[in-house]
Amino acid sequence: MSLTIKLHLTSQLNNLRHNNKTNLPKPIYSINPLIITIKKYKVKQRIKGGGNSNNNNMIKSSLIEPDGGILVDLVVPESQRDSKISEAQSMAKVKLTRIDLEWVHVISEGWASPLRGFMRESEYLQSLHFNCLRMEDGCVVNMSLPIVLAIDDETKGRIGTSFNVALVGPLGDCVAILRSIEIYEHNKEERIGRTWGTTVPGLPYVEEVITPAGNWLIGGDLEVLKPIKYNDGLDNYRLSPKQLRKEFDTRKADAVFAFQLRNPVHNGHALLMNDTRKRLLEMGYKNPVLLLHPLGGFTKADDVPLDVRMEQHSKVLEDGVLDPKTTIVAIFPSPMHYAGPTEVQWHAKARINAGANFYIVGRDPAGMAHPTEKRDLYDPDHGKKVLTMAPGLGKLNILPFKVAAYDTRDNKMAFFDPTRAKDFLFISGTKMRAYARNGEDPPNGFMCPSGWKVLVKYYESTQAEEPS
Amino acid sequence: MSLTIKLHLTSQLNNLRHNNKTNLPKPIYSINPLIITIKKYKVKQRIKGGGNSNNNNMIKSSLIEPDGGILVDLVVPESQRDSKISEAQSMAKVKLTRIDLEWVHVISEGWASPLRGFMRESEYLQSLHFNCLRMEDGCVVNMSLPIVLAIDDETKGRIGTSFNVALVGPLGDCVAILRSIEIYEHNKEERIGRTWGTTVPGLPYVEEVITPAGNWLIGGDLEVLKPIKYNDGLDNYRLSPKQLRKEFDTRKADAVFAFQLRNPVHNGHALLMNDTRKRLLEMGYKNPVLLLHPLGGFTKADDVPLDVRMEQHSKVLEDGVLDPKTTIVAIFPSPMHYAGPTEVQWHAKARINAGANFYIVGRDPAGMAHPTEKRDLYDPDHGKKVLTMAPGLGKLNILPFKVAAYDTRDNKMAFFDPTRAKDFLFISGTKMRAYARNGEDPPNGFMCPSGWKVLVKYYESTQAEEPS
Repeated sequence: MSLTIKLHLTSQLNNLRHNNKTNLPKPIYSINPLIITIKKYKVKQRIKGGGNSNNNNMIKSSLIEPDGGILVDLVVPESQRDSKISEAQSMAKVKLTRIDLEWVHVISEGWASPLRGFMRESEYLQSLHFNCLRMEDGCVVNMSLPIVLAIDDETKGRIGTSFNVALVGPLGDCVAILRSIEIYEHNKEERIGRTWGTTVPGLPYVEEVITPAGNWLIGGDLEVLKPIKYNDGLDNYRLSPKQLRKEFDTRKADAVFAFQLRNPVHNGHALLMNDTRKRLLEMGYKNPVLLLHPLGGFTKADDVPLDVRMEQHSKVLEDGVLDPKTTIVAIFPSPMHYAGPTEVQWHAKARINAGANFYIVGRDPAGMAHPTEKRDLYDPDHGKKVLTMAPGLGKLNILPFKVAAYDTRDNKMAFFDPTRAKDFLFISGTKMRAYARNGEDPPNGFMCPSGWKVLVKYYESTQAEEPS
Repeated sequence: MSLTIKLHLTSQLNNLRHNNKTNLPKPIYSINPLIITIKKYKVKQRIKGGGNSNNNNMIKSSLIEPDGGILVDLVVPESQRDSKISEAQSMAKVKLTRIDLEWVHVISEGWASPLRGFMRESEYLQSLHFNCLRMEDGCVVNMSLPIVLAIDDETKGRIGTSFNVALVGPLGDCVAILRSIEIYEHNKEERIGRTWGTTVPGLPYVEEVITPAGNWLIGGDLEVLKPIKYNDGLDNYRLSPKQLRKEFDTRKADAVFAFQLRNPVHNGHALLMNDTRKRLLEMGYKNPVLLLHPLGGFTKADDVPLDVRMEQHSKVLEDGVLDPKTTIVAIFPSPMHYAGPTEVQWHAKARINAGANFYIVGRDPAGMAHPTEKRDLYDPDHGKKVLTMAPGLGKLNILPFKVAAYDTRDNKMAFFDPTRAKDFLFISGTKMRAYARNGEDPPNGFMCPSGWKVLVKYYESTQAEEPS
């Protein structure tokens, strides 16, 4: 392995932030994914002005326009910070949970553009019923998940007839102002039914967020007093859509393909990503860049935690399984709903705002096992089908891929070939965990050894914590 | 009462069908409804050709275009009937329930235009997630309810690899052919969750139709072998969208306002309908026509049956509470879902296809009490809000109205005035039933006496049937 390949992810990040040049080898893997839809590509070179007083920087949208035309940025300029903080102190307070704060982060950086705050009722209803919002100009943007803030009766009482409220983070600091508020009923049953297509007990986001939440939703225009940070050693990976767009431009990317994940990267993923790049080159793009974009907000208890995943991803780049020169690894700050076809639209839409014009969608995106029945909660094909039909996502190129599995004939990950099904070994998360717990190695070629070691270490630590 | 006012509904129907002239007095009631949205009116005089080989008649769309531009008509021409029936005999058979047949009826006459059969998966998914369908030309039409046909494992097995199937009515006769079929999974839980926003037990359509249905859905292109008839003495009221459009043209209507209902008409409804006409006249329309359009398909057990409602409606016209000259009473053949804001879109969309360009929406349309909690299943305001936001309904003028109640000061039905709330008496369905069962009359002015008598007779008959 050459020195350049062994670059640690942090150096890669620093690299791309400071000198924006790397000089690394070409992709290693190259196998055919099923690329169904490649839409006509139009080069857009537009300079977008602010339109928002808080958004003074020019945002260049070289590949794809953000939804609504202007990337939302709701962090108040430093010059106004002190006066806004004083103003917030005098307002009625709404206490945020950790996950509420993740949504403040998401909204403030424009991942949900053109949304400028927690949803008011008219946005909520459109999201719930139509998975999209109609703009004043008649254009439709995708918005499949209700992005809402719940409050309880006591808080509603304290707010009274106030027009604005201050949002207080889990640590007690004022993090944002919500202006021109609207309070409306939080019909949890209906929200859950329409978002998940079920109200069965055991939905992780429902149990963590919705069931304990108050019976009211509060919408309004958000102003975030300073950029949201988590101080967990990973903030440097949390690039905003504006930073990502700038980086794509600096790298002179002429195509950006996003890969959403919340699991460790195995060689099946890697072969797909590398092959996608190869395909894009064959299509005439000169410099397609991969946005490897792990989800960083709330995940369910048995998912691999973010810090472990980030370490695993860094090993994958160090080992040269993915090429740091053409890959940007960053954290997508959204919480996870596990809402299948409804949520995958959100995952795709947010990446449009970050500048990606290609989106790779796998089997059963944002899916999980049914909590009470022996089946997947969603039809594994519905995610990619819905994505190609979804209002407001027409400008995004959707790249579906075939299932990858371990090919015991060639001892490597490959796309499943049904004509010789018996040669293929499916290594599920559960199976992977069993390998790690039993100290067994997975088949050679399933994952780069250094990435695997990260997982073994993690699973050993969880075992040590479990009661005997 | 003049002779003309006492015209029976049947005569009115015959009238409009045969000589299309009436000469009746002007509306009696005139109180202000809340008319929020009146969209710009464009006179359209277009002659639409078939585009469908089964649709040889020219369809004139004087007021509003059907969704998709062409009114679907899937009844095979008489000249082809015999050969199609022979063809159907040789096909694999799918047995229809009474409610399936109601949907065949609905689809065949173009109420669901541009839908040309039971939904295939791609239509089903769009309906379920987006409440609309995107057409090939990029236009969007509203389609909020999945219009699907369920089959069980045994039927699926019998169909095997057939391309076409014959649909067999509850009486054993071949009623239709479904061509180029597609069979896909019927995930009942997800369908219910996304359509009703709940999976609570006690939803009438779910218990009647979905729970007992098979685990597969079969979509395809429908050909109906002959017009669907019920032979219940009410078929004459079942005017197709084509017949209604023709009638509006014959009457030279320059506005058609539709009123969906599944309950008896009281004077509160009537004052609203009459006032709407007055408003439309004030806006400059010369001949606004009311489509009084009771739903005729499946309704829940405690709703008043169709034949009783039709008799009650006829009394309302005989008594002159509504003016037969400017009113068309016809049956809307759809089954009822009781799916609130999701269903009201269907009710509105179907009326576009029937030629209505104004739609009156009340409080809690298509709503009901929550089956297990002491509250309405839906926020009573969501129906009209969703209707004004719904994709594909932009061309329809939505007319919301305020709640009517019995004004004890003036002894008549009037729009509720919150400044003197104590004067108003709300007469719910339950209360109305109690009056009728106890042989009491409702307050004078609540409903025309002859219409009330129809209800008393009905409720007496149900009491007689109940075990003591």
